[in-house]
Amino acid sequence: MNIPEYDVSHYDGYAVRAEDVAQASIDNPTLLKVVGQSFLGEEFEGEIKVGEAVYIFTGCRVPLGANAVIPVEQAKAKNGFIEVRRSVKPYENIISAGSDVKKGEKLFSQGHVLRAQDMKFLLDIKKWKAKVFKKPVVAIISVGDELTDRIDETDRKKLDSHNIMISHLIKEAGGIPLPLGIATDDINDVKRLIIRGLEKADIVATIGGASVGGRDCCWEAANRIGIPTAVIRGIKVQPGRVTSLIILDKPIVLLPGHVQSTLVGFCLLLLPLIRHMAGFSSPFSFTTLNARLSHKLSLKEFASFKRVRFVKVTKVNSEYAAKPVLGDSSLTRIVVKANGFIVVPEGKKTIEEGEKVDVHLVNGLFPSLQTF
Amino acid sequence: MNIPEYDVSHYDGYAVRAEDVAQASIDNPTLLKVVGQSFLGEEFEGEIKVGEAVYIFTGCRVPLGANAVIPVEQAKAKNGFIEVRRSVKPYENIISAGSDVKKGEKLFSQGHVLRAQDMKFLLDIKKWKAKVFKKPVVAIISVGDELTDRIDETDRKKLDSHNIMISHLIKEAGGIPLPLGIATDDINDVKRLIIRGLEKADIVATIGGASVGGRDCCWEAANRIGIPTAVIRGIKVQPGRVTSLIILDKPIVLLPGHVQSTLVGFCLLLLPLIRHMAGFSSPFSFTTLNARLSHKLSLKEFASFKRVRFVKVTKVNSEYAAKPVLGDSSLTRIVVKANGFIVVPEGKKTIEEGEKVDVHLVNGLFPSLQTF
Repeated sequence: MNIPEYDVSHYDGYAVRAEDVAQASIDNPTLLKVVGQSFLGEEFEGEIKVGEAVYIFTGCRVPLGANAVIPVEQAKAKNGFIEVRRSVKPYENIISAGSDVKKGEKLFSQGHVLRAQDMKFLLDIKKWKAKVFKKPVVAIISVGDELTDRIDETDRKKLDSHNIMISHLIKEAGGIPLPLGIATDDINDVKRLIIRGLEKADIVATIGGASVGGRDCCWEAANRIGIPTAVIRGIKVQPGRVTSLIILDKPIVLLPGHVQSTLVGFCLLLLPLIRHMAGFSSPFSFTTLNARLSHKLSLKEFASFKRVRFVKVTKVNSEYAAKPVLGDSSLTRIVVKANGFIVVPEGKKTIEEGEKVDVHLVNGLFPSLQTF
Repeated sequence: MNIPEYDVSHYDGYAVRAEDVAQASIDNPTLLKVVGQSFLGEEFEGEIKVGEAVYIFTGCRVPLGANAVIPVEQAKAKNGFIEVRRSVKPYENIISAGSDVKKGEKLFSQGHVLRAQDMKFLLDIKKWKAKVFKKPVVAIISVGDELTDRIDETDRKKLDSHNIMISHLIKEAGGIPLPLGIATDDINDVKRLIIRGLEKADIVATIGGASVGGRDCCWEAANRIGIPTAVIRGIKVQPGRVTSLIILDKPIVLLPGHVQSTLVGFCLLLLPLIRHMAGFSSPFSFTTLNARLSHKLSLKEFASFKRVRFVKVTKVNSEYAAKPVLGDSSLTRIVVKANGFIVVPEGKKTIEEGEKVDVHLVNGLFPSLQTF
């Protein structure tokens, strides 16, 4: 349908013929006879003739014959007449039929995320229901003998805090987190929880035990469940290089356990997967700012990999300055101090002070610079 | 406390004295005797002496005497000994006590918004509880005889879609929306709902009826409830100029009814108020991008006001281009087509094609460019 369906008034006022008030001015007011009124649901059905006006409410259909509206405060009502002290142009204060939406027009493309105004808009055009993508459920399995989910055991074990972090990020990415608890460093225990995850969720994510060390058993556990239709064993990014993917009907993502590696694996593999399954048009959702690096960065290790480095961005005059926040990949404080990250291309061994870099922000992790 | 509390191992491996393996190489491996092992909660209590090593798990305290860790895959275990084929530097693969957090250090300032990694961090340092600000509850009153909240009445009335839009924006701003329903264009009805809002919520917001037209009664209704301690009657911004504030113990925000005006009033008055009461360090939460205007913009009306214009931003090479999306302030389609807004300073009557402008993004309204 056209929106508005008809020519409607933009103000509470008087529907008039612009021709009738063409000569109206403060010194020479034009007198019009008020022949009716238009409320929503109870509109004036007649036609306006020469010298006539109809009182009209905002959003009401403009009566036949009228072609302009004079706002109520610009006309003086007196004994069934109004005095008009200015001229109006044809179509002044009228919203034309179809000016918001033309009949047949495409409104949203697949992958569009409905914002506040989009929901209002759908209701305004009487679209009471819209077909949307289901949010994917992501099962989370924390792996490690050293972990507990009980505060009273934290004298000898570590609280499974990864789960809280990843749950929040999954929610912000558009998924629904489903924590399945802790698996010990035992192939059968990890396998049992992955199978439960495959039953209950759309994606399964393990945290920790993704590498090839003595205790790391996630890869083996996932591969023992069935024959994968596709696998990624490691990504060429550091930190996070052991991040892996096994597709057994549903995807299983193995995230490394050191916090920086966990986050890189999340941002570069789990996040785009969630967004893809949630129907977003683009799997990546970084907001990107261009900034100048404030300190030289040496990147000798893993030079054939992409390297992720966390940075703290501040606004200096009208420019952004990014300071590298460096430290061991297991230190949470690094990502607490940071408010963005950069991805350094393969082969690059130094970024000079003052060089321009793209800083990426991610919902839930580095949501926006204004919160700092 | 220091985090980590002690020097801990970064890997599963062997805690050693770096001096002992200083000469180790592939051709000349050094043999060390494994004298114990360290699990979390069951750590090796002795001291490592010359020629000795202790098997150690990631995150465990490094035993006395040891000053480096050799990752498990870089040592070959055989009959209670390990063969080491490379040297390590002192403190290699060890995370020093206090390197993540030094005892006494300030971690977060008031107003900081806890992100995913911050919550993990607090759990890691055994901060099980954190004192946070309460989210302010915002009562929403839609005002207008023409409105209904019943779909079966939409043949003759308009569905109250503003409420859905503003509720979503309030949630994204950090508040809790509390819709109180629809008031008719009657001072007593509006007053009754404002009083209910003052009882139940931290902020009351009305939508519509904020101006000085015949039907507009929100200002009068709010002022009849009591003597305000402070008021703002209109803001010098267009659209949105009738946005008002009445403080009666709690703040009452009057938002205009035309959708562009509603949104400007929300972004410039209600949003900062919610953020202030929610404890954010900065009342404004716009992400701002610098873009080039792609079409000349004429701004003759309300030249003594700030003017808000909605724009559609696209990335052109490495720059952003902003195209004005123009149209009547009541048209929802304008803000559906837009993905940002600019604020034009007082007095400025034209922005030339190619001129640089700051484009603002807001959670829930224009969340980020990546979703387009």
